[in-house]
Amino acid sequence: MTLEELDTPTLLLDEDIMRRNIKRLQDKLDLHSVQLRPHLKTCKSLQIAKQIKPVGPDASITVSTIAEAEYFFEGGYGDILYAVSATPHKLIRLKKLQDRGAQITLILDHIEGAKQIADAAIKLNTSFPCLIEIDCDGKRAGIKADDDALLPLATFINDQNGVSLAGVMTHSGGSYAANDIAAIKQVAIDEKIGITTAASRIREAGLPCPIVSVGSTPTATFADDFKGITEVRAGVYVFQDLVMEALNVCEKSDIAISVLSTVISHNKTHNRLLLDAGSLALSADPGKVNEMGNKHFGQICHAKTGKPIDNLYISSMNQEHGLISLDGLEYQLDDFPIGSQVRILPNHACITAAAYNEYQLLSSPSSVDGTYERCNGW
Amino acid sequence: MTLEELDTPTLLLDEDIMRRNIKRLQDKLDLHSVQLRPHLKTCKSLQIAKQIKPVGPDASITVSTIAEAEYFFEGGYGDILYAVSATPHKLIRLKKLQDRGAQITLILDHIEGAKQIADAAIKLNTSFPCLIEIDCDGKRAGIKADDDALLPLATFINDQNGVSLAGVMTHSGGSYAANDIAAIKQVAIDEKIGITTAASRIREAGLPCPIVSVGSTPTATFADDFKGITEVRAGVYVFQDLVMEALNVCEKSDIAISVLSTVISHNKTHNRLLLDAGSLALSADPGKVNEMGNKHFGQICHAKTGKPIDNLYISSMNQEHGLISLDGLEYQLDDFPIGSQVRILPNHACITAAAYNEYQLLSSPSSVDGTYERCNGW
Repeated sequence: MTLEELDTPTLLLDEDIMRRNIKRLQDKLDLHSVQLRPHLKTCKSLQIAKQIKPVGPDASITVSTIAEAEYFFEGGYGDILYAVSATPHKLIRLKKLQDRGAQITLILDHIEGAKQIADAAIKLNTSFPCLIEIDCDGKRAGIKADDDALLPLATFINDQNGVSLAGVMTHSGGSYAANDIAAIKQVAIDEKIGITTAASRIREAGLPCPIVSVGSTPTATFADDFKGITEVRAGVYVFQDLVMEALNVCEKSDIAISVLSTVISHNKTHNRLLLDAGSLALSADPGKVNEMGNKHFGQICHAKTGKPIDNLYISSMNQEHGLISLDGLEYQLDDFPIGSQVRILPNHACITAAAYNEYQLLSSPSSVDGTYERCNGW
Repeated sequence: MTLEELDTPTLLLDEDIMRRNIKRLQDKLDLHSVQLRPHLKTCKSLQIAKQIKPVGPDASITVSTIAEAEYFFEGGYGDILYAVSATPHKLIRLKKLQDRGAQITLILDHIEGAKQIADAAIKLNTSFPCLIEIDCDGKRAGIKADDDALLPLATFINDQNGVSLAGVMTHSGGSYAANDIAAIKQVAIDEKIGITTAASRIREAGLPCPIVSVGSTPTATFADDFKGITEVRAGVYVFQDLVMEALNVCEKSDIAISVLSTVISHNKTHNRLLLDAGSLALSADPGKVNEMGNKHFGQICHAKTGKPIDNLYISSMNQEHGLISLDGLEYQLDDFPIGSQVRILPNHACITAAAYNEYQLLSSPSSVDGTYERCNGW
C-alpha cells in the first residue's frame, strides 16, 4: 500500500531505524556486561518487544500499567517489573498473572505503602518480590539513598509476609532536564552513586539486594560505568524522539516513528499551512524548544523520504488541526500543496504513539506493508 | 460497584451534571429559536449524543473525524457535518455513508481544496454539499468575510459538479483566548458580524446560502444575538472543563467528567503526593493557569463527594505518575493517605476523555453503575 492510500493521520514505524536503535543500546550494554530489562511502556507492542528481547519464562521486562503486564505475559514474557508504586486493588489482577506462572516484581518507596501491599498480598494468599525505589535526582518518586527511612523499609519488606526484598531501582528523570552530554553523564554518575549507595547500605545491614536497577534512555546512552548495577531499564530509545534529539541522545535520522498527515488547506492571510494532525494525533506534550528557540509540536518531514524539512515545525494545534506558520521561513504555501502529505516527528514518542492502536510498517520510504498492534489503556 | 472497586485511573461521568449542562444551552438556543448542531468530538459517545439530540435521518450533528461520522451514522444520525477540511482520500469512506443514506456536508476554505474535492466526488459519481469556512478571529482556518477570494470560491462551489453550496460556517477559537465575559461577548459579536457578512455577500451575488453556522462553547454561552444565524455548534459544554471555568463559562461544579486516581505514595523530602494518573491519563494539555497563577494539569477533588479541594492541582506529570506539590499549601501529606482515591477535573475535557474507551457512570457520589462507550481514533 502506498502512503497516499492510507487514511491520515496515522502512525508510521520505520523498522530499519528501530532495529538500529535497539542494536546500538544492546551492543553497549553487552560491552559493559549489564542486563537490559526493556521498558515496554513506549512500544506497548509484542511484535516490537520480541525484537528487543526474545520471549521466555525468564525474559525480564518493565511495564507501566497492569494492562501491559497482562498483554506481555500473554505474549510469553515471564519476568515482569511493574514500575509504578502499586496499590492493593491492583494486586487482584497481578495475582491472576502469578497464578498462571508470572514472576511479578513491584516497587515500593514508603513504609505505609509497603504495609498495605503486604496485607493485601497475604489476603490473596501470595507474596510479591519488591524493589525499593531510590530517588537520585528529586524528579519523581523514591527515597534518597541516605534517608533514615531506607533501612527500616528494607527490613520491613525483608521480614514481612506478603512481600520479599529483591533489590533497589531508580529512574533518572532528571536526565531529561540536562542541557548537554556532560550534564547527562553527571546525572548518570549521580544515578550510579545513589543506587549503589542504597544497595550497599541494605547489604551492610545484612539484608539481600540481588537486583540493582537503573533506567532512563539518556543515562543508559551516556553512562560510562555500570559497576555494581545489575540491570538497565530504557524504553524510548527504541523509537527516539525530538526530546532525545534535543538532549543529543540521538539525531533526527534516528527517530523511528512519525505521524503521516495531509495538508488540508492554506491560510494566505496568516501565511499558515493546515494539517489534519492536531493535539489528538500528536499529543499536546510541548517537548523541548527547537533550534530556533520556539515551542512546537513536531518536526515536519518529507512524506516520501522521511527527511526533515529545515526549521519547519507544528506551531500550534486544535483537536484535529495542526497549524504551521511560515512566517520568517524561506518557504511558500505552494511548496506544500493542498492534498499532499508530510510526516511529523513527535516531541515525545511514548505519548504520541498512545493515540494509535497500531503501527503502519514502512516497507520502502513511500509504502507500508502490514501493521503491529499496541496495548493501550490500563 | 463502589469507586474503591474500580481500577484506576479511570474516567467518571456524572450524568446529572451533564444533563444540566445540556439543558442549559438547549434552553438558551430555544429561546433564540436557533438550531443546535452538537459537536460530538467531545463526547464521542452514542449514549451521550442521544441525550443531546434524538437520533433520526434528519438529526444534524457535527463530527471531527471520519470514524465519528461512521459511528454516529451507524447509531442513527443522518445529517452529519464533517467540520475539518476534507481531502480526496477521505471521500472514499464518506461516499459509503452517502450510499447508505447519510447526508454528509463538508467544509472548504480554499479554491484548490474545492477543486480537489469536486474532482474526487465526480470520480466517485457523487456530490457533497459544502459550507465555506469563514475566519472571524485569525485563530485557525477559513477565509475572511471580506476576502476577495470568497465570491470566486462560492461561485465555483455553486457551479461545479461534485460539490454544491450549502452555506457558511465559522469556529470562534479566539474565544478561548478571552480574559473575561465582556471579551467573549465581543468575540461573539465579531463571529456574528463575520459570518452574516459572508452570507450577505454570497446572497447578494445571487448564490444560495441556506446554512449560517457558528460555533464554540464560550460564544454559544454568552452571545446575545443570533439573528441571521441558522445553527450553533458546540461540544465541550456537555462536560465543561477547567479551561471553560477559567473563562467563566462554567463553575467547577458544572464539570461532568473527572479522572478517578489513587494516591500511590508520599514523597516527604519534596513534600509531594504521587498519583497513578499521569500524562496518558490526564493529557499534557496545559489549559489555563489556575487561580494561583500556576500552570497545572488538573484540579484535585474529594473522591466521594466530587468537591474540589482548594488550591490543590496536579503540579507535574510523567507518563503514569501525577505529582502534587504541597509546598505553600495548608495540607499535610497524611491528609491524603496512600491508597486513598481522588478525582481530578480535566483542563481540556475533549483531550483527556480521548485516553479512555468508556465512561464509568456515577450512580451515587461514591459508586458507579454501568458504562458508556467512546469512539476514538480516525
